[in-house]
Amino acid sequence: MKNTFGTAISVTIFGESHGAAVGAVVDGLAAGIPINRKYIAEQMSRRKAKSDGLSTTRIEADSVEFVSGVYNDHTTGTAITLLIHNRNTRSNDYAKMADLLRPGHADLTAYAKYGGWQDARGGGHFSGRITAAVVAAGALCRSVLQAKGVEIATHLRKCGGVEDLPFAQQEKEMLQQQQMLNKMDFAIISETAGQAMQQAIRQAGREGDSVGGVLETAVTGIDAGLGEPFFESVESVLAQLMFSIPAVKGIEFGEGFGFADLQGSTANDPFRMQGDTVVTATNRNGGINGGITNGMPIVFRTVVKPTPSIYKEQQTVDYTNKQDAVLQIHGRHDPCILPRARAVQDAMCAIGLLDLYTQRFGTLWHTQEGK
Amino acid sequence: MKNTFGTAISVTIFGESHGAAVGAVVDGLAAGIPINRKYIAEQMSRRKAKSDGLSTTRIEADSVEFVSGVYNDHTTGTAITLLIHNRNTRSNDYAKMADLLRPGHADLTAYAKYGGWQDARGGGHFSGRITAAVVAAGALCRSVLQAKGVEIATHLRKCGGVEDLPFAQQEKEMLQQQQMLNKMDFAIISETAGQAMQQAIRQAGREGDSVGGVLETAVTGIDAGLGEPFFESVESVLAQLMFSIPAVKGIEFGEGFGFADLQGSTANDPFRMQGDTVVTATNRNGGINGGITNGMPIVFRTVVKPTPSIYKEQQTVDYTNKQDAVLQIHGRHDPCILPRARAVQDAMCAIGLLDLYTQRFGTLWHTQEGK
Amino acid sequence: MKNTFGTAISVTIFGESHGAAVGAVVDGLAAGIPINRKYIAEQMSRRKAKSDGLSTTRIEADSVEFVSGVYNDHTTGTAITLLIHNRNTRSNDYAKMADLLRPGHADLTAYAKYGGWQDARGGGHFSGRITAAVVAAGALCRSVLQAKGVEIATHLRKCGGVEDLPFAQQEKEMLQQQQMLNKMDFAIISETAGQAMQQAIRQAGREGDSVGGVLETAVTGIDAGLGEPFFESVESVLAQLMFSIPAVKGIEFGEGFGFADLQGSTANDPFRMQGDTVVTATNRNGGINGGITNGMPIVFRTVVKPTPSIYKEQQTVDYTNKQDAVLQIHGRHDPCILPRARAVQDAMCAIGLLDLYTQRFGTLWHTQEGK
Amino acid sequence: MKNTFGTAISVTIFGESHGAAVGAVVDGLAAGIPINRKYIAEQMSRRKAKSDGLSTTRIEADSVEFVSGVYNDHTTGTAITLLIHNRNTRSNDYAKMADLLRPGHADLTAYAKYGGWQDARGGGHFSGRITAAVVAAGALCRSVLQAKGVEIATHLRKCGGVEDLPFAQQEKEMLQQQQMLNKMDFAIISETAGQAMQQAIRQAGREGDSVGGVLETAVTGIDAGLGEPFFESVESVLAQLMFSIPAVKGIEFGEGFGFADLQGSTANDPFRMQGDTVVTATNRNGGINGGITNGMPIVFRTVVKPTPSIYKEQQTVDYTNKQDAVLQIHGRHDPCILPRARAVQDAMCAIGLLDLYTQRFGTLWHTQEGK
Repeated sequence: MKNTFGTAISVTIFGESHGAAVGAVVDGLAAGIPINRKYIAEQMSRRKAKSDGLSTTRIEADSVEFVSGVYNDHTTGTAITLLIHNRNTRSNDYAKMADLLRPGHADLTAYAKYGGWQDARGGGHFSGRITAAVVAAGALCRSVLQAKGVEIATHLRKCGGVEDLPFAQQEKEMLQQQQMLNKMDFAIISETAGQAMQQAIRQAGREGDSVGGVLETAVTGIDAGLGEPFFESVESVLAQLMFSIPAVKGIEFGEGFGFADLQGSTANDPFRMQGDTVVTATNRNGGINGGITNGMPIVFRTVVKPTPSIYKEQQTVDYTNKQDAVLQIHGRHDPCILPRARAVQDAMCAIGLLDLYTQRFGTLWHTQEGK
Repeated sequence: MKNTFGTAISVTIFGESHGAAVGAVVDGLAAGIPINRKYIAEQMSRRKAKSDGLSTTRIEADSVEFVSGVYNDHTTGTAITLLIHNRNTRSNDYAKMADLLRPGHADLTAYAKYGGWQDARGGGHFSGRITAAVVAAGALCRSVLQAKGVEIATHLRKCGGVEDLPFAQQEKEMLQQQQMLNKMDFAIISETAGQAMQQAIRQAGREGDSVGGVLETAVTGIDAGLGEPFFESVESVLAQLMFSIPAVKGIEFGEGFGFADLQGSTANDPFRMQGDTVVTATNRNGGINGGITNGMPIVFRTVVKPTPSIYKEQQTVDYTNKQDAVLQIHGRHDPCILPRARAVQDAMCAIGLLDLYTQRFGTLWHTQEGK
Repeated sequence: MKNTFGTAISVTIFGESHGAAVGAVVDGLAAGIPINRKYIAEQMSRRKAKSDGLSTTRIEADSVEFVSGVYNDHTTGTAITLLIHNRNTRSNDYAKMADLLRPGHADLTAYAKYGGWQDARGGGHFSGRITAAVVAAGALCRSVLQAKGVEIATHLRKCGGVEDLPFAQQEKEMLQQQQMLNKMDFAIISETAGQAMQQAIRQAGREGDSVGGVLETAVTGIDAGLGEPFFESVESVLAQLMFSIPAVKGIEFGEGFGFADLQGSTANDPFRMQGDTVVTATNRNGGINGGITNGMPIVFRTVVKPTPSIYKEQQTVDYTNKQDAVLQIHGRHDPCILPRARAVQDAMCAIGLLDLYTQRFGTLWHTQEGK
Repeated sequence: MKNTFGTAISVTIFGESHGAAVGAVVDGLAAGIPINRKYIAEQMSRRKAKSDGLSTTRIEADSVEFVSGVYNDHTTGTAITLLIHNRNTRSNDYAKMADLLRPGHADLTAYAKYGGWQDARGGGHFSGRITAAVVAAGALCRSVLQAKGVEIATHLRKCGGVEDLPFAQQEKEMLQQQQMLNKMDFAIISETAGQAMQQAIRQAGREGDSVGGVLETAVTGIDAGLGEPFFESVESVLAQLMFSIPAVKGIEFGEGFGFADLQGSTANDPFRMQGDTVVTATNRNGGINGGITNGMPIVFRTVVKPTPSIYKEQQTVDYTNKQDAVLQIHGRHDPCILPRARAVQDAMCAIGLLDLYTQRFGTLWHTQEGK
């Protein structure tokens, strides 16, 4: 279904950048899960623009309103609908350039698909704004996973030409990194790399340009046996979700594209006993074999293209008059969306994994406390 | 659903490597589509092992039996079930090593998921053998697309350390390359690169090792307006399918991971008028903006890890006795699966695109001839 | 999916009786469909309680707010989210009897399913209040169907022991009846029967009791060839939807349960030529053969049980204290919900049929006007 | 999806009456469920025609071949594909009347949907023959339910004008009736009624006619809390499945259409304590409140129309020549399909309930024995 993901847990997202609200319906959560508003606000805050020169100056309150499925601060077991109202919109910025297709954006494809009926203001349904709803929905799923000991964290592995350190090999050390990252606004492992990245982003911003990068996610505490051999492989499920994040154009698991240059003898992860448990000595497969979790941490990376909205002059066409034109974008935009997209990646990951867990263990597995 | 893909067109796959048959149910095709057995056999042949030292010596006839949905060599409009019988199986090769988990394979995850009840012979349901059914199902979908002018082709962009040329930039030239590739057993654009690749594969085979690589797919003649902004983005749909191919560990569209090092000003594809049509001057986004086709060719690459089955000795564990062990794999295996996986990638691509077309234009769009 | 219906058109409903709002997400409608607010208000009005002694005295404004997917009074092609706010709630009425399970209601099953976390106020998610969202969603679907000449109408075939006339046999006459019914608040064919019914309902209300009945729906102008032979038979699709209406406990198509007493020779509808078209001389199969529409009007009936909320004293149990008890229900309730449920039945029917049409003809079939 | 049912458990059916085979893919069953071939053969046998004058003289061996998902007589956890080969086909009987539409059948709708490409032999995909695959799939699901104490049984409540006794009120006595019925070929509670029914069926057969009737199903040992308030209400799920049985034209739960003549005070089931358990003193709601099981037995009835294939002369049209005609059907047909349809109803019920159980308790709930 077009705007719905999932089998046991389903998430339906909706909204336009300059409409009344963006939101989501989260269906399939068990009753009795506590709604921790502080926790949700923290997740939302990570996705929010900051007035630090790294992101757009459109800053929304992003408070999450629960319209259904929540009562006395707990889930009721019915479909949860959440809304995040749009308040700080400046549609005029967009009106001026309605006819000029913005390169790298969905302006042309919106015409192809919707024939001119789309709400083009602020990118409409294609706007990154919709991911606010994903983060809120993800926060609900993530709280269930965390109660079961599953931790998710994402850092900027590469940005503006600067590389961060990779995650540690050992799960224990990786978990410490995750906990650290989950407290940071600008999530990096190496402080030095982080400073260089921020400098590169600000520099691009000053030039009216933008930068892309790579986000790396690790999941620890994951059970073995989740996922399916084919269409619901863990890679298939996570990839479907990650490519729902605007600007993501690639994903790789474990060694990823590095596998192209390995041989079987260097690519395979040897099995070893660790007490009574079978582990792999290395984790080149990113915790997934045959589409199914093997109990080692899941590790994957996505590539996020540079924000297409830049202030530099660009060649384009005037769609209505069907002629070549020059575009100068105004409005408020991020010179780099990775610091914010990272929260969305975490959220998408939580949604996908909770669906797989629920398929295997049932809805009742969610239950956190009795009544 | 676990073994089912699709919304308007659905494909359900089943089978085990050494069971009676592998197969698929293809549901949603219109009535009256001609079943061209020669065409299907050609597609199947591309996935088949050849006795050329590049692939396993297990060679199957792979003739496709239609059990339902086909009558008088045309589709009837009902669910099409196709079977490919397994004949040339040597289960003894596997019996000897039943307890020793093969590194890089799904042996451990099969235990985690199925608790020992899996049919482990030849990899069971995790075997690449199941992809024979995908190729047959894909052939049906592909024939509908081709009748509409949509062409798909895949080549080995990289293998055993050797790089092939990329696809041409111009759609016309790209189409010629596709037509050439679709006649080749070992699909490469540069003949020289092809020879070097084959040498590298044979060398790895001689060393009892295996190599990985990158497959690149191009789709020409595609309509603008297919796909959805989020969970059914063209990237999401194709990625879900490609990660259903055993050994695929990454996918990227257009510039892919190269976007990490670009800036907005170099990453965006400028729009230009070409007669009355809006095109992009470059195609760094691989034909997709905002999850939706923009009318330019779709271009994507997957990374295929080296075949995990190698003859070299490997460290592993004895699962039953829970102790470290050494594994020496026998049986018949490919030193490189890219030449064959390429047919599966084409097929998966056809299935995904026909689903998107059918959602937009309905089942009747398939119709090719009257009765 | 739990709260989502449909394949090509999907409708997700949510909300609790005394929560902030009830609503729906309608996904899959093409762009450019006009949103006729007067038309929607009319449909909503039919479901609304009236101050006529036939229904509850809780009267809601029921104005429909579009949160997404609508722009400039047309659909944008993206997911449409609509909200109907709950304003006129008196939760105190319910608080008093929280522990006493209401016979015929979902109070016990809510405990079984949600373990006490349910929002029990006003029946929570089980309330007929949620059907306001169904009517709004149905209005959107219905407007597309009507533009294509498909007409839907429902009347009270039986209520409080009084029978209305059945629909006419001839489609032309049936269409006139539909148009008449679609203007009525209390939808009956025979005025005399209608008066007797209203009398019976008022009488039951005065006695603190309630009545059930039968709703009959006819669909004219329907294309032949919709539906599938098995799990998506037209009967399967409509039945799934009708049983989503609280209080519906049975459905029958054409002769329905009357078939039990017929023989093949009296049950079969003979085919006849009518000009160049094949028609059936009778329509005992209610327009459906083998699960697929045959072009004759679809005719079906549902049975609606008497409103379980009555003022008469009832035997029940105190759930918390686990002991037998006596219940005296207060609050505002309908002595008969058929006059209002009829609007829901129309809406559900429109949703199901638009899904089947869209599967066959694609999304673009919706298009009503160019831009 | 067209030929696929289910969320956690999915069943895809395929096949044509005179094709190579009919069959099903059952996906979502846990690994390690024993395949009891004797048990499956018994279920298949109930659906089979008998040479007793009550059913068609086309008698198939109906042995079930497992093509995938079964190994060492246990499920492997992967998709199970089963085939039932068609052997005893006499297509000539049908060839003679290809152009004459059979009243009450899907001949016209097949043309409308498939445009003449359908495999019309023996009714093709519309044939009751496909239900052999449903019974086999249902047997797998039923064995899981029975291991959990859930019993399903169906009897001919009404047939050829004769009524059988209803199920007993008390669950204990009902279970005894179920166990008795599940051993009978002609499933009735009252022996006298059974004899009269068989006489009526034979009489209709002798007259070249056929009879319809009502099938009544009871489910005992069912857990409370299954199903959802709306689109996946237990009634919705079971109705979708029952209307997938050819010839079923109505379904009702508990009092069903009898509710139309009741009042709230006589329709509601009073709650009572039975030890520590809340039960209902009566079961007029058929074990379901608000779409969710309440722990009381599920009771429902379907109406099965008289077999449309009769030997009596009928009025029809010649589809090719578009003119009125007279039809005399030959071939082999049941004067009454209820004795056989009852096995299909049991199977559909098992499929639906296992899906609901699995959604709630997860796949692992299936597990019956360790390995």
